[in-house]
Amino acid sequence: MAAITEANKAKAHELLAKLSLDEKIAMIHAAGLFRTEGVPRLGIPPMRMDDGPMGPRAELHNDNWMPLWNTRDYVTYLPSGSAIASTWNPTLARAAGDVLGEEARGRGKDVILGPSINIKRSPLCGRNFEYMSEDPFLTSSLGVEVIRGVQEHDVSACAKHFAANSQETDRLDVDETISERALREIYLPAFEAAVKTGNVLSIMGAYNLVNGTQCCESATLLDDILRDEWGFEGFVVSDWSAVKRTKESAEVGLDVEMSVTPNFDDYYFAKPLKAAVEAGEVSEADVDTKVLRVLAVMDALHMLPDEPADSTGSDVAAASDAAVVPAAPVRKAGSYATIAHTQTALDVAREAVVLLKNDSDALPLNEHALRRVLVVGANADRIHSNGGGSAVIKALHEVSPLLGLNGQLGGNAEIIHALGYDAKQVVQDASWQEESLTNSVGDASDDADRARTLRDEAVALAREFAASGDPVIFVGGLDHEQDLEGRDRDTMRLPYGQDELIEALLDAAPDTILVFVAGSPVEMPWADRAKTIVWSWYNGCEGGTALAEALLGRVNPSGHLPETFPIALADCPAHSIGTFGPGLHVEYTEDIYVGYRHYETKNVPVRFPFGHGLSYTTFEYSDLHVQRAQVDDGEKAQILVSFTVANVGQRAGQAVPQVYLGLEGTGEDRPAKELKGFAKVELAPGQSLEVTVPLDASQALRYWSNTAAAFALAPEAKVFVGESAHDIRLTGRVA
Amino acid sequence: MAAITEANKAKAHELLAKLSLDEKIAMIHAAGLFRTEGVPRLGIPPMRMDDGPMGPRAELHNDNWMPLWNTRDYVTYLPSGSAIASTWNPTLARAAGDVLGEEARGRGKDVILGPSINIKRSPLCGRNFEYMSEDPFLTSSLGVEVIRGVQEHDVSACAKHFAANSQETDRLDVDETISERALREIYLPAFEAAVKTGNVLSIMGAYNLVNGTQCCESATLLDDILRDEWGFEGFVVSDWSAVKRTKESAEVGLDVEMSVTPNFDDYYFAKPLKAAVEAGEVSEADVDTKVLRVLAVMDALHMLPDEPADSTGSDVAAASDAAVVPAAPVRKAGSYATIAHTQTALDVAREAVVLLKNDSDALPLNEHALRRVLVVGANADRIHSNGGGSAVIKALHEVSPLLGLNGQLGGNAEIIHALGYDAKQVVQDASWQEESLTNSVGDASDDADRARTLRDEAVALAREFAASGDPVIFVGGLDHEQDLEGRDRDTMRLPYGQDELIEALLDAAPDTILVFVAGSPVEMPWADRAKTIVWSWYNGCEGGTALAEALLGRVNPSGHLPETFPIALADCPAHSIGTFGPGLHVEYTEDIYVGYRHYETKNVPVRFPFGHGLSYTTFEYSDLHVQRAQVDDGEKAQILVSFTVANVGQRAGQAVPQVYLGLEGTGEDRPAKELKGFAKVELAPGQSLEVTVPLDASQALRYWSNTAAAFALAPEAKVFVGESAHDIRLTGRVA
Repeated sequence: MAAITEANKAKAHELLAKLSLDEKIAMIHAAGLFRTEGVPRLGIPPMRMDDGPMGPRAELHNDNWMPLWNTRDYVTYLPSGSAIASTWNPTLARAAGDVLGEEARGRGKDVILGPSINIKRSPLCGRNFEYMSEDPFLTSSLGVEVIRGVQEHDVSACAKHFAANSQETDRLDVDETISERALREIYLPAFEAAVKTGNVLSIMGAYNLVNGTQCCESATLLDDILRDEWGFEGFVVSDWSAVKRTKESAEVGLDVEMSVTPNFDDYYFAKPLKAAVEAGEVSEADVDTKVLRVLAVMDALHMLPDEPADSTGSDVAAASDAAVVPAAPVRKAGSYATIAHTQTALDVAREAVVLLKNDSDALPLNEHALRRVLVVGANADRIHSNGGGSAVIKALHEVSPLLGLNGQLGGNAEIIHALGYDAKQVVQDASWQEESLTNSVGDASDDADRARTLRDEAVALAREFAASGDPVIFVGGLDHEQDLEGRDRDTMRLPYGQDELIEALLDAAPDTILVFVAGSPVEMPWADRAKTIVWSWYNGCEGGTALAEALLGRVNPSGHLPETFPIALADCPAHSIGTFGPGLHVEYTEDIYVGYRHYETKNVPVRFPFGHGLSYTTFEYSDLHVQRAQVDDGEKAQILVSFTVANVGQRAGQAVPQVYLGLEGTGEDRPAKELKGFAKVELAPGQSLEVTVPLDASQALRYWSNTAAAFALAPEAKVFVGESAHDIRLTGRVA
Repeated sequence: MAAITEANKAKAHELLAKLSLDEKIAMIHAAGLFRTEGVPRLGIPPMRMDDGPMGPRAELHNDNWMPLWNTRDYVTYLPSGSAIASTWNPTLARAAGDVLGEEARGRGKDVILGPSINIKRSPLCGRNFEYMSEDPFLTSSLGVEVIRGVQEHDVSACAKHFAANSQETDRLDVDETISERALREIYLPAFEAAVKTGNVLSIMGAYNLVNGTQCCESATLLDDILRDEWGFEGFVVSDWSAVKRTKESAEVGLDVEMSVTPNFDDYYFAKPLKAAVEAGEVSEADVDTKVLRVLAVMDALHMLPDEPADSTGSDVAAASDAAVVPAAPVRKAGSYATIAHTQTALDVAREAVVLLKNDSDALPLNEHALRRVLVVGANADRIHSNGGGSAVIKALHEVSPLLGLNGQLGGNAEIIHALGYDAKQVVQDASWQEESLTNSVGDASDDADRARTLRDEAVALAREFAASGDPVIFVGGLDHEQDLEGRDRDTMRLPYGQDELIEALLDAAPDTILVFVAGSPVEMPWADRAKTIVWSWYNGCEGGTALAEALLGRVNPSGHLPETFPIALADCPAHSIGTFGPGLHVEYTEDIYVGYRHYETKNVPVRFPFGHGLSYTTFEYSDLHVQRAQVDDGEKAQILVSFTVANVGQRAGQAVPQVYLGLEGTGEDRPAKELKGFAKVELAPGQSLEVTVPLDASQALRYWSNTAAAFALAPEAKVFVGESAHDIRLTGRVA
């Protein structure tokens, strides 16, 4: 979808002239938990929004958080943002966005509240599973494609949460002190790309404060940067209850107020705003600006009638120089819960699975030799679509790992499942937004006996299976008790005693294959002993199928980590240098040294580096050539990074060559490496391919100069080509 | 899969020689609710069976009827037998069987307890939804394909229930008096075809008695007809608790006893059988015969090891003249709950929907003109996979009509749903086999107010929609409170006050489109007033999608009724001539005049005739040619029925030309018409096609002569070609 056009803006002005103040105000605050009010006499519909990045959320009552409980709001459960990022495949990100938009439109929505493109500052953030990466370039590259996919369907994506919503703890009040450089290089670029490249039509203002100002009151963020610098012409909607005061939000570029309570008339942008306008405290022109943005987006989405219902001849229309009357715009209809969408979910999930370690080539399993398989762990038999906060999905179906393994492996292998540990499943209260979750199932302190029993049973079985040469697969990790909106983890350790269980399993069955379903990294104190580790995310409705296909070698894994897996939480810069978590103030003292920018620059060892992901085949790299080039009649400077990738193994597979630059000659401290380009290439056994990754020089060499307080271009840079931020295969220079 | 081979039988003999009496007995009665015992020392596994024709049932505990409650026994919910028959498409029947077999094997099953191929004698039978048709030829044609599909996967189909399990009322004890002619022509041919053409490997003995003898004790059925006449070499398993006595079942061809209680050692074929053998009351040779049949099937399914575990050199193997040692047989693995299987379910569902009436061409809906749609009825928002008795499915997903309409139509049309009537949903007790269902939700007598309120609300909405020209769609029918194993309906009327509601809807909105989801015909006293009637069955996991596609014209309906829809129950021969229902004795006095054989012969008007189904296009028939021919070197006599079908409408569509014969010159009373062949042909608009339907003369002219007490061939016959048993387009003769 193109950006907002002049025609959209003209239509907005035409309608604005007909609106009363009450009608204007009705359009910029909630009249339901997920909608505004329309203006029926002019044919202006309400703006209908819906949670979530993994699929449109189930229908709730208009004024309370209870579900409607019908059969028609099931949707396709898409892989999480983490999983999409793990594919490193823009085509799949586009496909996922395409499904998200088509389903949102099918469900009658105008705005889908995603993608979630905040940068993962700490592994503890409760919403990391929704977010894509610790890296702004990867987030931008894939986030833009999700947005484009969504907006193909006359639905607005809503890039969230603007800006720097990096933690859930005290999210409503926390003030984050962030340097201009860190904002510009780390926390804002994905939003900049969403606007400039993705043409996103709406953006969500975050709960938190940045440098002393509420995001939803920030002229710096909402006016200076978003509008003046980036040219954003869509609307900004507040996160639900992120507006705290009327005048302060009304006078900046926060356009629509949404919240969590049913007293819609009392919202800051409702009666209080009208009163402020009438009292002269807020200018009606500010209200008009917001309404114009909303109307322009509505027109871009083909929501507005060609002729307003009570139009009696419009000056604006007469002023148009169009020679012919345009055909009535037909809005795309959408569809949802279809087989085609399930197939897309599987396509994405297949490339999201990351093979972290395969030291003894235990994977892929030889399915023809399998007679018995022991599967240990609660996540084997658990679904995840039904939790997580606003990302919760009423999935048409969800294939668990156990179902995926059984369903794919069929009847010739007996699959024994042992729980191994007790993961309390807490049914999410429908009113979670209003009340915190309570762990109501059992009392942990009483469960020691049960935990021991489960562990002993699983370990005994593992010992028996190991003795007979039958595989043991552990499927553990996290669930939406940890990966949860509104609450950060307080540890990077696995919950439910899994570490002790894993150690015992590795004692009993040293070849145990460890599989993790989770949205965030965990500490792996047993990692050196483990020979085989596979990482799956909350991988959508076909996640269990994709996992089984990977384990059985039907699909060769090609997922790569979109974030560093540190050895321990204490290694993380947000915790070792900056501050994170409770209190009304956190310091982003680590500055731009987030994720691998820290580990690679400070030589901190990690468990698995950013960009890491193994394959069942082997790729070799050679012949690096780096050259500057001009394209588009010299207007755009490029850096062409060319090299050869060869599949020297026995299976077809996909390589993910990654191009990092180390900017030099800036006179300022810079990270050792920064991701500036990547590719995903399919290679048959024995095949070689010359790959060229073109970098936009104005982006690739760009950095925020602390001395100039402005963006500048580095004159030169080291070039690294590798399979992760740490596994560098080729080096060169841009001069 | 081929029939049982000599090698299978040799292997069975080889193993039998090694078995103790205890081991033999363990193999021919239950050691779990759905399995026998194996002989581990010889590598003989248990025989694992599973309900049902619409997909393998969820896992239960071995010795009680409670589910295991895990995530790995979800399956693809296939359209019911009625729906498969409604496609009149053998390719789709094969595809459905293929999915059923692959899923059963994927779930680790050896025998899937289906297809259900009893003839629908009365519309009231509670299991009609599982059964295919009132016609033996249609049932044979499609049942055989289901069996072939299943058995492609090293899984045995189990044709059930042998024989004449035509009612659920008193099914354990009812004695059915059926003429030899009716048995041979109506109730047995589908089983005959299952054996002779489908090579079915197992058959289920029915609960009921036929002509004074329990089916599971009937030498006539199990020995004389099934084995001696038809050459069946597989095994017969009892319906669950259909064996009533040890000696009487042991001495006939009933091979495996299954039942519903956990005291497996006390089953008639357990300790009591051993005692009877030891006492000389039952010959061990009878036991051996049963074990041989079970082993031969196991070998045909590749369940047996090449070399028995303790074999020390086998005479049987030495006697084989095979020059090379055969490779170890690899059993097919299966898979389930896959996207491909869902697609097959949709393929079948699409061709199962029957357009019964479309007088004003209200269908297909013009989706581009739709702005609002009113959907009335509980079946719009209800799923059916979770009921029905042993056919109950734990579906991976099920698309309701409301979800299908919304999901396909998308966001541009607002779909309002009004319940209209109160269909009590009764959660099926997991122990339904042991306890009858209780209607535990509310008290019907207290619900009059609620019913009136619901009806008034729906009717008012319908009136409003009609006034604005917006469509009103009623989606009602039956559910598994009526279409239910173990209980027949006591009326052919719609439940829940739907008739009154429909009348009121037709008053308020005369163009109301009536859609029925049901497994059995209902009386339609308002049918003459209704302009548009669509029939969907329990149409599998994508049933709602298929219905929406039909209503929107994305798929041109091509389903045809596999049974007559009579005007009133009193018209049905089983009720007007024969007897049906409670008591220990029913009389099949209507003889062979079942379904259309009665209505067409006796000129009884019906609501919709057997074979009826409209299309959004129109087909014309011409140029009938009938000739006898010899094929296969003169061994097989055929009747070639050739004619031209032309699509004279504006849309592509599929015609279902049906060939009926009226046998003449027999000197005995014969039905006016009997289905002997059909085709399904896709035609583009304007396209004509010459269709030849070859009839096997030995089948098509065959009848059971009462005077000769044997099958005979009619010398001549009328030939009818039409779009239903009543809508005859061409007539000719075989002489």
